[in-house]
Amino acid sequence: MSISSSSSAFLAPPHTSSRQEYVRLQAKSIGVYRCIARPEEEKTGYKTKVSRNANLSKLQAGYLFPEVARKKAAHLLKYPDAHVISLGIGDTTEPIPEVITSAMVKRTYGLSTLEGYSGYGPGQGEMPLRAAIASTFYRDLGIEEDDIFVSDGAKCDISRLQVVFGSNVTMAVQDPSYPAYVDSSVIMGQTGKFQKDVERYENIEYMRCSPENSFFPDLSTVARTDIIFFCSPNNPTGASATRDQLTQLVQFAKKNGSIIVFDSAYAMYMSDDNPRSIFEIVGAKEVAIETASFSKYAGFTGVRLGWTVVPKELLFSDGFSVARDFNRIVCTCFNGASNISQAGGFACLSPEGLEAMHEVVSFYKENTDIIVKTFTSLGFNVYGGKNAPYVWVHFPGRSSWDVFGEILEKTHVVTTPGSGFGPGGEGFIRVSAFGHRGNILEACKRFKQLYN
Amino acid sequence: MSISSSSSAFLAPPHTSSRQEYVRLQAKSIGVYRCIARPEEEKTGYKTKVSRNANLSKLQAGYLFPEVARKKAAHLLKYPDAHVISLGIGDTTEPIPEVITSAMVKRTYGLSTLEGYSGYGPGQGEMPLRAAIASTFYRDLGIEEDDIFVSDGAKCDISRLQVVFGSNVTMAVQDPSYPAYVDSSVIMGQTGKFQKDVERYENIEYMRCSPENSFFPDLSTVARTDIIFFCSPNNPTGASATRDQLTQLVQFAKKNGSIIVFDSAYAMYMSDDNPRSIFEIVGAKEVAIETASFSKYAGFTGVRLGWTVVPKELLFSDGFSVARDFNRIVCTCFNGASNISQAGGFACLSPEGLEAMHEVVSFYKENTDIIVKTFTSLGFNVYGGKNAPYVWVHFPGRSSWDVFGEILEKTHVVTTPGSGFGPGGEGFIRVSAFGHRGNILEACKRFKQLYN
Repeated sequence: MSISSSSSAFLAPPHTSSRQEYVRLQAKSIGVYRCIARPEEEKTGYKTKVSRNANLSKLQAGYLFPEVARKKAAHLLKYPDAHVISLGIGDTTEPIPEVITSAMVKRTYGLSTLEGYSGYGPGQGEMPLRAAIASTFYRDLGIEEDDIFVSDGAKCDISRLQVVFGSNVTMAVQDPSYPAYVDSSVIMGQTGKFQKDVERYENIEYMRCSPENSFFPDLSTVARTDIIFFCSPNNPTGASATRDQLTQLVQFAKKNGSIIVFDSAYAMYMSDDNPRSIFEIVGAKEVAIETASFSKYAGFTGVRLGWTVVPKELLFSDGFSVARDFNRIVCTCFNGASNISQAGGFACLSPEGLEAMHEVVSFYKENTDIIVKTFTSLGFNVYGGKNAPYVWVHFPGRSSWDVFGEILEKTHVVTTPGSGFGPGGEGFIRVSAFGHRGNILEACKRFKQLYN
Repeated sequence: MSISSSSSAFLAPPHTSSRQEYVRLQAKSIGVYRCIARPEEEKTGYKTKVSRNANLSKLQAGYLFPEVARKKAAHLLKYPDAHVISLGIGDTTEPIPEVITSAMVKRTYGLSTLEGYSGYGPGQGEMPLRAAIASTFYRDLGIEEDDIFVSDGAKCDISRLQVVFGSNVTMAVQDPSYPAYVDSSVIMGQTGKFQKDVERYENIEYMRCSPENSFFPDLSTVARTDIIFFCSPNNPTGASATRDQLTQLVQFAKKNGSIIVFDSAYAMYMSDDNPRSIFEIVGAKEVAIETASFSKYAGFTGVRLGWTVVPKELLFSDGFSVARDFNRIVCTCFNGASNISQAGGFACLSPEGLEAMHEVVSFYKENTDIIVKTFTSLGFNVYGGKNAPYVWVHFPGRSSWDVFGEILEKTHVVTTPGSGFGPGGEGFIRVSAFGHRGNILEACKRFKQLYN
């Protein structure tokens, strides 16, 4: 059993011998992580005559998770002896099951032999892996192996999709939502400026998802856009859309001629009987792309492996195939995921690999239960958790960053401020269930001390 | 000794039992590889109302190397029993030295333990690897560890750099050059349409590099652009720029306020005493970015690992740091190279790893010599080879694609047509030295039969 059980010690902070070095590195990372310069930091040396990309100057803050990491690092500098627990960034903590690493080891050893060596693979991924993804996750849904594009992760694919779409499309996002959708849209020049008063970018349709609408937008009030990003089970709210809701969404897209980019990175975390894939909905192949990942199923956040499904049936207004343009971007801007990672992905989809992934997912789901029960017992309104490894806790009337700061300062636990996911996340905190069991229990003990 | 020696058998085509399957897969890949639809392929089913990205419709052909692969696949279908030798795409063939795979194996096993597990790493790469790259390749050049951004390969970084630059910059490329520079520029909307008569895109400055100017452009005739892509040792011509030439280039960029993107992916192949890095030139840190790769040194074409150097001294016209914008793109559009690949890269830079990489490079350089001698003995004007794993053979007055087709049809050897690298490559063929020794010898024997 490679997963830390509830009886295992939680991961202690580094021992004293390496502590100074650890704090030094954390401090160093502050500089690395800060993504936006302050005006006074503008340099005074030689300047080229190349204008800065105006789209990048629209970005209002560093990408959320590096910002959270920066605040964590600053906290470590302030409290060098604190045992800081990170339930912020959503980073997996449990070892990768051996059935999966063994396959990667075998492939790696093979690379040192004439028979086992391979160089460039197809940019779209190795065909046996594409076929295994199709048959494991899309059996009977009419998705074929050549509709699957293997990648180094869903976040990277989202950017590649944005490059396909270009700067002249309009887009909608759930509010709150995973920040890569909005940020990549800003970078590609699809948006106007950031409007400080409403905390939104011009030219993006924000689909509010709140407890009032059970986290599914009222589509009758949503304007038509070219692209609709939709994540279910949702990061950060943990909400999972029902079959009926997804049917509405597909019909809405079809009526408007929109393309849905459906992010199903947490599908294996679902307890409810809602669709795991948008392609379970009739007609979705004509209006939807789906992106997914091994990161949260097999602990592949560092190994890097994901995939995107672009059905042949999906066409631009001139009849040109979206898959063909995505293929061109994959051919030109990417060179395929690491062949070792792909060997790991293939092992994930064997019967033993699937069982091992389910075990990993179950472990994190137990963590989720513990966190949900803790905040519920403290009288908070708590959402998510049942179908996703994220717990969405409401602090009505308070600023998310204030609550984030309060929790960090008083409990040394890193969470993620809801407003980092969009204005609709204001007043919420996302608590990630990715952690060693001991750390989850310790964090919950501290939450109880703070909020009892 | 893991590298195939001259006495080893060349890699035979698959045996008869798997032959049919092999041909079937090759045939299938024809569909996969073709990146541009023909008009008659436009679909007639439901169409979304999303307009196709106009920049993508400017692309004139599939990305070069998939196109070459497609022609190879078609040839295999036509001659199912031929022993086809691929000296086209520049794909490494020799096993990865064990000192490097051992480190990857160790890291992979560690991922199955509590102590050895790691999730998300910094998007910029693990600091020990960044430090090792800085001290191995840029010692005494004033490049520091935090100037190094580790990536999944130089090609991927080129696209990320283009996303940083955006659509409002102008660019120059060597002609001929590695096609990813031009294609990524077209994709980002930096260019006008393709002009069929001159085989060039509008709004790109093509810097002709030919035997007449010793493959270094006459900068007095080159218009100012924001960005200058420059590859040395060059792919495809194999030419390596001298210290004096690179000093001219840096001065040219400085005068014009341009940014050089210097591609040094073949630096370890140099025999001459020319600079291995643009940062050997005084003042380059204020005007240059450098991108590089482990692919051709350690056989990492499938493992995926490269890096890009963006010095702190490089500033946009408003004084904003280019590194800071590149960091933001890396944070938002990428999640770091695979941690296993990074462990391999770190091993590459140990004393034993460096020695092993030099051995790999030496092997391919011996191949290069064999190819150069063959074509020279046949009376061709032959360029490159001395400082790069590519041999650039002149067929004056002939079409590159015709020569490519002639060689493939009559010798079953895949090369790359020079015109695929730009109009300045017309009349040339690039022969890659990446191959098992037996295959190189066999290909050269066939070249002699054809052209004697």
